Amino acid sequence: MERVKTLQHQLIHYLDNEAKSIGQTAPINLYRPIEYTLNMGGKRLRPVMVLLAAELFGGKVDQVMNTALAVEIFHNFTLLHDDMMDKAELRRNKPAVHKKYNENIAILSGDAMSIMAYRYLLKTKLDRQSEILSLFTETAIEVCEGQQYDMDFETRLDVTVTEYLEMIRLKTAVLLACSFKMGALAANASDADAAHIYNFGINLGLAFQLQDDWLDCYADQDKFGKRIGGDILANKKTFLLINALERANKADKQELIGWLEKTQFDETEKIEAVKTIYRNTAVPEITQEAITAYYKQAIESIQHIAIAESLKKDLRDLADSILKREH
Amino acid sequence: MERVKTLQHQLIHYLDNEAKSIGQTAPINLYRPIEYTLNMGGKRLRPVMVLLAAELFGGKVDQVMNTALAVEIFHNFTLLHDDMMDKAELRRNKPAVHKKYNENIAILSGDAMSIMAYRYLLKTKLDRQSEILSLFTETAIEVCEGQQYDMDFETRLDVTVTEYLEMIRLKTAVLLACSFKMGALAANASDADAAHIYNFGINLGLAFQLQDDWLDCYADQDKFGKRIGGDILANKKTFLLINALERANKADKQELIGWLEKTQFDETEKIEAVKTIYRNTAVPEITQEAITAYYKQAIESIQHIAIAESLKKDLRDLADSILKREH
Repeated sequence: MERVKTLQHQLIHYLDNEAKSIGQTAPINLYRPIEYTLNMGGKRLRPVMVLLAAELFGGKVDQVMNTALAVEIFHNFTLLHDDMMDKAELRRNKPAVHKKYNENIAILSGDAMSIMAYRYLLKTKLDRQSEILSLFTETAIEVCEGQQYDMDFETRLDVTVTEYLEMIRLKTAVLLACSFKMGALAANASDADAAHIYNFGINLGLAFQLQDDWLDCYADQDKFGKRIGGDILANKKTFLLINALERANKADKQELIGWLEKTQFDETEKIEAVKTIYRNTAVPEITQEAITAYYKQAIESIQHIAIAESLKKDLRDLADSILKREH
Repeated sequence: MERVKTLQHQLIHYLDNEAKSIGQTAPINLYRPIEYTLNMGGKRLRPVMVLLAAELFGGKVDQVMNTALAVEIFHNFTLLHDDMMDKAELRRNKPAVHKKYNENIAILSGDAMSIMAYRYLLKTKLDRQSEILSLFTETAIEVCEGQQYDMDFETRLDVTVTEYLEMIRLKTAVLLACSFKMGALAANASDADAAHIYNFGINLGLAFQLQDDWLDCYADQDKFGKRIGGDILANKKTFLLINALERANKADKQELIGWLEKTQFDETEKIEAVKTIYRNTAVPEITQEAITAYYKQAIESIQHIAIAESLKKDLRDLADSILKREH
């Protein structure tokens, strides 16, 4: 993880400077909220993926710093608009932009961020610029599609596991995959290697999202930043809930739907009742199996990449750290 | 105007087909609102400007159809989000997207449209692709800045004419200028000619916006689609109002501010009172002079372009038709 940590520091240093200069630009009601958003922190996974992939294929980190930043700005733009759509008041324990400022500012600052992502992509002239731009553009559209499916699912009780997996592929996995592939393309990797590292990103992204669903329910409360069971209280259509709805017997399914429809309830009681049904339907085990399966596919993708074995360790370490696995 | 009409027909034919195919894409809650937006009509000025400029510099219309469409999709995205920010219920006499669907759909469909603009820009491989992409990106950011200034002005009484002109340059004029220049670049025009046609667009855009302000107050009600005086009722900081605030004597200024602050009033009375103050401060004359000055500068820019005189007529005709001038 040494290498990843170093890249993370380089990225954060560059990002901090850019955010500061953005925040000093007029009109400040447009740019201050962008600086605020970019300064909210986070692990900066996606830009680090760009940098790491570029380096693994022999590229220079400096050459892809703007590409990496573009992905982070785009990702933060989606969080900003998603928070507004989800009426989420907090993001990383700070007021969301639409709460700290107002809804119009949240809309317009987000709009500007999505275009600024392109500004950063265009800043450094890369040989395969146009491939990178197309990949980014198609990915960005997929992310919008994923968010729409996620919103569509809110009012449905018949979402299938297949539909759910496609939604998280679009909403989460493709941007991780795109980040790796952009780094690879920037470093002139072969098409085959670019495809392998893309697949690595997809499988890692799916495992990551399923683990996110699982942690919301089964994390160690002391280590978990949020309240355990938040997704259950919000009736969020997670991998857990969808599997439970698909697999529960008649009585459990009826009870589960009852909890989804109830507007007045004791929160702890609801969480415990839903978790009992999850246990009855083997949802925790099924989720863990799915996470392991996607993790293994991710690791498998790494094996196909034509780089030195010693370099592959960084990718495996990154996957393990994201999924908090110890090997 | 023959040529412009032909280009307009070609563009609309292409746009209609694309809109239809977009509307058939899943998830429909994302794409139907985009089809709805693109089908709202309008003069399609900006994409026609792309096509016309390309043709004037010897380019092929087919080669820039996707570039033209990108600009129209971007423009419609800004209208969609602006309507939501302005809480406007109607757009071209149809319910605005946030009214016909809902606010979340308006946010997300708009987001997808701004990215789809890039998809269309990337569809056709042009020699000067990267210049075109940078021009478009910088322009798009300027449009966001213009919208932010416009919103900032809502709560200010001390907006200067200079600030106002800079706001409309950003919000309106740069996208017209960009449309012309993108067409020129696509057809490999010289840098000097690209700059001249850009300046033509800026001056035409400024004249166009000032005329828009003027028409809201002084149009012939029979020919005008909307109610005369709408901007006055909405306290919109137009060129007229800002000039009146800057130039009015103490009594008139006090009365004008009184009308801006009143929450209960007879609408016709307010419109008449404000128009009286406009007359007292020579606002209609000043506005007409400014329109004429920008129009003349626009025509002047055409004269510098190194194309056959016979071709320049199309640009002059376009300017005259946009400004409804008869020469």
